Amino acid sequence: MAMTSKATWIWYPGDYEIWLGNKMNNRRTERGAFFPPFWKTDSHYVTVEFSTVVELAEEEEITIAAEGIFNIKLDGKLQFGMPATFLLPAGRHNLNIKVWNQMTPPALFVEGKTIKSSSAWRVTFEDLEWIDESGKASDTSATVYQAAGCWNFGREERPSAYKLCREALPAVACSAQQEGKLYDFGRETFGYLVLEGAKGNGEVKIFYGESPEEAMDKAFCETLDRIAVNEAGFTDLATGAVVAASERYVLDNSKAFRYVYVECEGVTLEGVSMEYEYAPVSYRGSFRSNDEELNRIWEIGAYTMHLTTREFFIDGIKRDRWVWSGDAVQSYLMNYYLFFDSECVKRTTWLLRGKDPVTAHTNTIMDYTFYWFIGIYDYYMYTGDRLFVEQIYPRMQTMMAFVEGRANERGMVEGQTGDWVFVDWADGYLDKKGELAIEQVLLCKSLETMALCAELVGNEADRAKYAERAATLRALLLPTFWNETKQALVHNCVEGKQSEAVTRYANMFATFFGYLSPAQQQQIKHSVLLNDEVLKITTPYMRFYELEALCVLGEQEAVMGEMKDYWGGMLREGATSFWEKYNPSESGTQHLAMYGRPYGKSLCHAWGASPIYLLGRYYLGVKPTKPGYAEFEIRPTLGGLEWMEGTIPTPDGEIRVKMNSEQIEVEATAGCGWLYLATGQTPSASVGTFESVGEGEYRLRIEAGKAVTICY
Amino acid sequence: MAMTSKATWIWYPGDYEIWLGNKMNNRRTERGAFFPPFWKTDSHYVTVEFSTVVELAEEEEITIAAEGIFNIKLDGKLQFGMPATFLLPAGRHNLNIKVWNQMTPPALFVEGKTIKSSSAWRVTFEDLEWIDESGKASDTSATVYQAAGCWNFGREERPSAYKLCREALPAVACSAQQEGKLYDFGRETFGYLVLEGAKGNGEVKIFYGESPEEAMDKAFCETLDRIAVNEAGFTDLATGAVVAASERYVLDNSKAFRYVYVECEGVTLEGVSMEYEYAPVSYRGSFRSNDEELNRIWEIGAYTMHLTTREFFIDGIKRDRWVWSGDAVQSYLMNYYLFFDSECVKRTTWLLRGKDPVTAHTNTIMDYTFYWFIGIYDYYMYTGDRLFVEQIYPRMQTMMAFVEGRANERGMVEGQTGDWVFVDWADGYLDKKGELAIEQVLLCKSLETMALCAELVGNEADRAKYAERAATLRALLLPTFWNETKQALVHNCVEGKQSEAVTRYANMFATFFGYLSPAQQQQIKHSVLLNDEVLKITTPYMRFYELEALCVLGEQEAVMGEMKDYWGGMLREGATSFWEKYNPSESGTQHLAMYGRPYGKSLCHAWGASPIYLLGRYYLGVKPTKPGYAEFEIRPTLGGLEWMEGTIPTPDGEIRVKMNSEQIEVEATAGCGWLYLATGQTPSASVGTFESVGEGEYRLRIEAGKAVTICY
Repeated sequence: MAMTSKATWIWYPGDYEIWLGNKMNNRRTERGAFFPPFWKTDSHYVTVEFSTVVELAEEEEITIAAEGIFNIKLDGKLQFGMPATFLLPAGRHNLNIKVWNQMTPPALFVEGKTIKSSSAWRVTFEDLEWIDESGKASDTSATVYQAAGCWNFGREERPSAYKLCREALPAVACSAQQEGKLYDFGRETFGYLVLEGAKGNGEVKIFYGESPEEAMDKAFCETLDRIAVNEAGFTDLATGAVVAASERYVLDNSKAFRYVYVECEGVTLEGVSMEYEYAPVSYRGSFRSNDEELNRIWEIGAYTMHLTTREFFIDGIKRDRWVWSGDAVQSYLMNYYLFFDSECVKRTTWLLRGKDPVTAHTNTIMDYTFYWFIGIYDYYMYTGDRLFVEQIYPRMQTMMAFVEGRANERGMVEGQTGDWVFVDWADGYLDKKGELAIEQVLLCKSLETMALCAELVGNEADRAKYAERAATLRALLLPTFWNETKQALVHNCVEGKQSEAVTRYANMFATFFGYLSPAQQQQIKHSVLLNDEVLKITTPYMRFYELEALCVLGEQEAVMGEMKDYWGGMLREGATSFWEKYNPSESGTQHLAMYGRPYGKSLCHAWGASPIYLLGRYYLGVKPTKPGYAEFEIRPTLGGLEWMEGTIPTPDGEIRVKMNSEQIEVEATAGCGWLYLATGQTPSASVGTFESVGEGEYRLRIEAGKAVTICY
Repeated sequence: MAMTSKATWIWYPGDYEIWLGNKMNNRRTERGAFFPPFWKTDSHYVTVEFSTVVELAEEEEITIAAEGIFNIKLDGKLQFGMPATFLLPAGRHNLNIKVWNQMTPPALFVEGKTIKSSSAWRVTFEDLEWIDESGKASDTSATVYQAAGCWNFGREERPSAYKLCREALPAVACSAQQEGKLYDFGRETFGYLVLEGAKGNGEVKIFYGESPEEAMDKAFCETLDRIAVNEAGFTDLATGAVVAASERYVLDNSKAFRYVYVECEGVTLEGVSMEYEYAPVSYRGSFRSNDEELNRIWEIGAYTMHLTTREFFIDGIKRDRWVWSGDAVQSYLMNYYLFFDSECVKRTTWLLRGKDPVTAHTNTIMDYTFYWFIGIYDYYMYTGDRLFVEQIYPRMQTMMAFVEGRANERGMVEGQTGDWVFVDWADGYLDKKGELAIEQVLLCKSLETMALCAELVGNEADRAKYAERAATLRALLLPTFWNETKQALVHNCVEGKQSEAVTRYANMFATFFGYLSPAQQQQIKHSVLLNDEVLKITTPYMRFYELEALCVLGEQEAVMGEMKDYWGGMLREGATSFWEKYNPSESGTQHLAMYGRPYGKSLCHAWGASPIYLLGRYYLGVKPTKPGYAEFEIRPTLGGLEWMEGTIPTPDGEIRVKMNSEQIEVEATAGCGWLYLATGQTPSASVGTFESVGEGEYRLRIEAGKAVTICY
């Protein structure tokens, strides 16, 4: 067995993620009330056994740290107590350490000269069969097995103590308003409010706003705090938490805001500041162009992503601060072009899945279950992390079993009691009855994902089963939903009858999933995607896929116009992060309202940041064609820009692209791939030679470490 | 909705029990090593919503206490913070309180003038459907629903702080031995050792023994402790727990022992005492007779039961101190004739079942799964507690689904990978291959139990399904296992072929389950039960059923002899509690060994106490014939005694029986029933008149509160 060079804390895969996710999801408050999710909250296995087999040339002392009560078995024999160090004799040995912890996930850190806890250790919750044996042919040639979970925590970084980073930030402006003061922190932000020099005997009332209107609206702002102050100290009146008096009181729960309105009763306050909380991610991706507005869109998108990339990818930072699958799968894609934080993708995927038994769809939403599947294969393609697929595959099986257990006799899914068929927040009415075309398209892609992942983990029976089911469903899609008159997929089918409605959803997914013929793709481009008669999309969420479909169809120039209109529109409305929903036809405080509440809308929502993804994948034009960017493809397209340049992170390096109307510079620091250009005539390259691939398109081999300049 | 008169802490049914059970099961140590169970350890749902509907004539203030972070919704509207009191306006209202707690089970206590938290509240873990709706016809006339779990904790009795009672006890003798001192506590006991006046700088080594041999055998005693002592205080060297110096150091973990051998290095010790730990149960049942040895057997049995009746019914107090289904189902039956502690039966049943998904048999043992089912119907018959059946029924369904998923094409169970087919600890070889007769007999009874419980909860589809499966299996039993030549059920069938072996197990269960014809019963009495050629049973565990079968066949006199031989034999060996295993042919320290370890045997094992049950049910002769002793039957049998008298507890009272060779006195304080006597001629009664039921048997109606004296 290969030993990794560095020991790390290990746990049952998914357990730490689910536990940490509970902490995060449960930080939501609504006007001072604790507001946990309304779906099943899972938790960790409380007793877990870790094991490894060691082959020691000489005796070796290990140090052992555990989160929990533990025991040690050497070659099956229990050892006394819970020692901090333990001496293993030379030779081949089975080392088993069993940890029990009700409060936080059982976790283990072991380090010796050669023995180091890592994902090379095995783990069981006493489900009686070592989980590497489940669903895996015993004769697979590669030694792959279900492995311990980890996240590269060093010895002193106890998993249960994990916290994001903080940085003290002042307000940039303060003005007297009504009975109190309004503080402006300059842009959308997130963290812990700090009361400076609070003295007296009374109460501080704090009203948060993403807008000044919200902060000043004491009756309707979405979040607030009430802090009682006296000589002894501070009491959070919502939670009852008490903190001794000091010059600086940092509130216990984080909030999203740009503005804070503070009223004091019987208390004097020197000022208000904050501790900004953030994930320590690197901005590995970049984008610049001649268009400053577009650059600003990219930057605000990146900041929006940074605010919503936390312990997990959350939807928005004000409300609900939860992990939602439909939102997350977009964050993953943006992340691959910005932070390339693989750990956050894995954590989010584990949390969304939770534990068996499956009692409902992911987040209770049918479509979100399908995005969960799709995100796993995306992850594998971008990262090449096969171990993760192996770890999560058993939960993919049980999730798909839940889905198939609710399918109708045609293998299609329809909303049942307890299912939320979401699709999108739409201003027009969306019929949710019967077989929705988009749900079947997403299910089909999910079944294809199951087949691909089954193959990856070496489960041939599953591969064949899911491939057959995917093929059967796919063969039904067009006969069921394609309407020749409308030249489009209709929205749904009820009791075997096509509805009259055409919506964009199924049409755009079918486009970039490649479920339509080239002719049909061109038809729906005009009959649906570029047709203003069809119900418009007003969430950046579904605009993400709409614009992606148009990019796949080569409409980068049209999409550029849309991006500048739509995201530029938010900027012109003063956005410092992108919103949950934006309808250009609204104005003023209409932009703040949603869910029937005047400030219900989130003004910092991850799904608002899609230009990050579109610019990286469809303008700089980079995507992996083999897992983990072992091979990639670059199809740069200016889409109306004069020039652009940018960096795409990959697992082991980056790909840099710079382009103007005459010249392209490309360099990849790892992997190899092809640069494609549709120019009509052979371009020239400083390294290598273009070859024709037909229809006026040419390609050039790109090798790692060799910068190439192309003239075209 | 009926309100109970007293508020109690409530939780998700089974969750507190599983959490508390983990604490208990995980107190096992083996020579200073933490030793948790080797099966899946479940835990509580971390987020739970409690709800009730109130109808208030006037506004009402409630006080709220929760274990966990909580929120309150009144008629769907979230309220600020986590208040200790809350005012509800008059009228009809929905009150929902949601609690999150990772560490201990979310629990709630609410009390107002009319509003009181109780099992009348509903609870969900957000499995999306209120659990009262699952598997239940909506038109059931009785308002029965899945209800909150509780255990009558008052406001100040926080569930997570629950502890058994303690009482300081001195050693009764102390003698210098080897390098240290041997303390004798006079009889088998359980609790926390106390070091009195320990001073110095060094270590105290403590070796526990149920026998003096074990305590003095430092290398092989089953449990031990090492305590480091210095000026600052005490350090438990196994756990690292530190306690400041004091005159009296109470060890942190309880142990089972009669003897303690203590060696001090660098430490002086004034003495050793203990804190006896016990469950606060009442001895509601009693038994006395002219036979003092038999009386002593009953008393030692009762003490054995008291030692093993703790937060749960455990197997033995030294090792493993775990909850095992096969052991527990016998404890339940003994309990009905001694403490009638219904709460402990429920707690034990919840813990044994754990949570979904089912990944293995109960305690990993196939037969133990079946005892789990059987124990539930027993519980219902003795207590009449239908609510519990309703609460546990969904887990009965998933447990039976697991069993049926592993059955062969004939609907019979055979051991598969991961299954432990136990049956009994037998000195002779027991074949575990193929279809074991006893396993099918137990499965058949389990299926019958499912049908009965399905009917109780109003699930007609399940009732019909399980009744049909039980009938199918039962029809196969005799054709498969009955051997006319041997006049017995054979032990097993492998690949359709009866084995040559006959064992007692299936024959005795089939007898008291009524699966044999009267003629077959008489045949196996001689061909098996009273046949010394058939492999003898050497555990009190299976002797329980063997003697029960003989009692059912009217062999009370023979059984009396067996009891006095077998349990009297243990007494003559000096037992102060009954053992895990007793083979009269062994002698001396042979009696201490088991599992290949010199002191592996438990000398205080619940299944050793079966005379408690046999004397109550088959000599005093009392059993319920309608749930909860609404109706009962008394069939007193002296079985060779000159006289006997005793009390049988019932849910709402007790039944007293006193009998000698001429006269019987009977009184029931609640319920009504029949006294049966087979005398050949009509007995006379002080109240009422005997009626003949044929074959020389007569019966007399017994009414609550009316003492009756019978002459026969």
